[in-house]
Amino acid sequence: MEVQNLWQTMEKGKMDKQMKIAVVGVGLIGGSFALTLKEKGLAAEVVGVDNSEPNRNKALELGLVDRFEELPAAVAGADLIVLATPVSSIPLLAVKVLNLVDDSQVVIDMGSTKQELCEVIAQHPRRGRFVATHPMWGTEFSGPEAAVHGAFAGRTVVICDREASDPDALESVERIYAEIGMPVKYMSAEEQDTHTAYVSHISHITSFALALTVLEKEREEEHIFDLAGGGFESTVRLAKSSPATWIPIFMQNKYNILDVLREHIHQLQIFRRMIEKDDVEGLRSLMVRANSIKRILP
Amino acid sequence: MEVQNLWQTMEKGKMDKQMKIAVVGVGLIGGSFALTLKEKGLAAEVVGVDNSEPNRNKALELGLVDRFEELPAAVAGADLIVLATPVSSIPLLAVKVLNLVDDSQVVIDMGSTKQELCEVIAQHPRRGRFVATHPMWGTEFSGPEAAVHGAFAGRTVVICDREASDPDALESVERIYAEIGMPVKYMSAEEQDTHTAYVSHISHITSFALALTVLEKEREEEHIFDLAGGGFESTVRLAKSSPATWIPIFMQNKYNILDVLREHIHQLQIFRRMIEKDDVEGLRSLMVRANSIKRILP
Repeated sequence: MEVQNLWQTMEKGKMDKQMKIAVVGVGLIGGSFALTLKEKGLAAEVVGVDNSEPNRNKALELGLVDRFEELPAAVAGADLIVLATPVSSIPLLAVKVLNLVDDSQVVIDMGSTKQELCEVIAQHPRRGRFVATHPMWGTEFSGPEAAVHGAFAGRTVVICDREASDPDALESVERIYAEIGMPVKYMSAEEQDTHTAYVSHISHITSFALALTVLEKEREEEHIFDLAGGGFESTVRLAKSSPATWIPIFMQNKYNILDVLREHIHQLQIFRRMIEKDDVEGLRSLMVRANSIKRILP
Repeated sequence: MEVQNLWQTMEKGKMDKQMKIAVVGVGLIGGSFALTLKEKGLAAEVVGVDNSEPNRNKALELGLVDRFEELPAAVAGADLIVLATPVSSIPLLAVKVLNLVDDSQVVIDMGSTKQELCEVIAQHPRRGRFVATHPMWGTEFSGPEAAVHGAFAGRTVVICDREASDPDALESVERIYAEIGMPVKYMSAEEQDTHTAYVSHISHITSFALALTVLEKEREEEHIFDLAGGGFESTVRLAKSSPATWIPIFMQNKYNILDVLREHIHQLQIFRRMIEKDDVEGLRSLMVRANSIKRILP
């Protein structure tokens, strides 16, 4: 149990001489995570795997990883393998990586959806080496050039179906996130996908729809000019996000997202009807209730 | 033409010995504007008018204004009168103030809607002393305690129906906004209300509706816990805004807002239908189009 010993003996600051990491998909998330692991002294070496040559060159130029390898070679030498590709490719990739690892290695993913992944790997003989994680951090930008220093700290990380992971693998991953400064929440893959539909996915869809609303209007009018200052820039920021990242998320979390979207459209229709009828008291009661979001998001 | 001479002779930094300002409604906007005028050396004295005693006490404690007066006394001594109350009270207040001013005084408002206001004051014999302005700045907070230093700079200010203002009054106001560092856009009151429905009012409604969507879900589920990190916090920020500020805006800009809301709900329904049908190509084309919002909002 090499890894277990490694983790049991390690102390803060000593780990950097020991842990080798493979990051599969060196974009916004994988690249920022690689930087964080290095900064926190958690990684001696970070090897990247990425099927885009321009992205590989960019990532090397920016110093996000030490070098690139093909997947089998990268996995062979790694204590920790991090999957940070679009969620559509994670389940199959997880199987391929689990096929390669032994009991000294740990695999995590960083995807925004978990049900499909956890279902696909459920019966794999090495399932215990996998820890399904969703660090709740991101920006509207994408690719290796979007990777930033100092990401993740202070944000929540969700760990799913922890009982399916080997205790030593789980503990290793908990220690990494603790070192980064991320509080952990545990839930089932199903709960995480429902939760994330509300706290992340729906916000992206409303932003995309809001951008389209304004762009539709702009076709007819000259005066959609300067969108900063009135509140629009914060609600529409996420509309700059990459379709390559988000379409797979919407597809994998389809039923939860359809539920949330139905409820959101319903709320907008209530608003619309009250404004139409000059129902000031109704609006006040809705808005006072909405104000209580401060309680959850101070 | 005392004011004209004052403005023609003033230079940056000299104005503070000369201009007396009355701010009616010393909350987020009026309070921040008072601070800005002082900081920029534009005001020798700022007299507040506010019908809430707690707000008056708070504003004095925070040093937002030098003292409070009743409206007639405040107007009598002022070179510039600034109306910064909720938009529902601005039209009547504008008439009352115009009844009191002479040709040496200038009146501006800072409201988010303009059609009703400009219609009400259109035939007033002192209409020329009024300049209808909408500085595009705000936060989700309200009241004098929400006033901040350094507000407004760099944001656009809309000036409406400029041909209805006396040239000297218009020039005075343009110089004040230039000193603060706000680029000016000119348009009709009608155009401004349409524009602002898109770039500000709709964002507030989607935020309120998004907060309500999540709060509905929270009734059933425990796992709506930590809303930071996934994008939700930026799209829902405006749901903390004050009903007292925003209900009058929604009522005054009712028809534009109903139009925009109809289009926005339509865009959300298109999204919903595409997700339902796994229409990946349709989604990609919508999202790529939405991405072009970068062009307007870099």
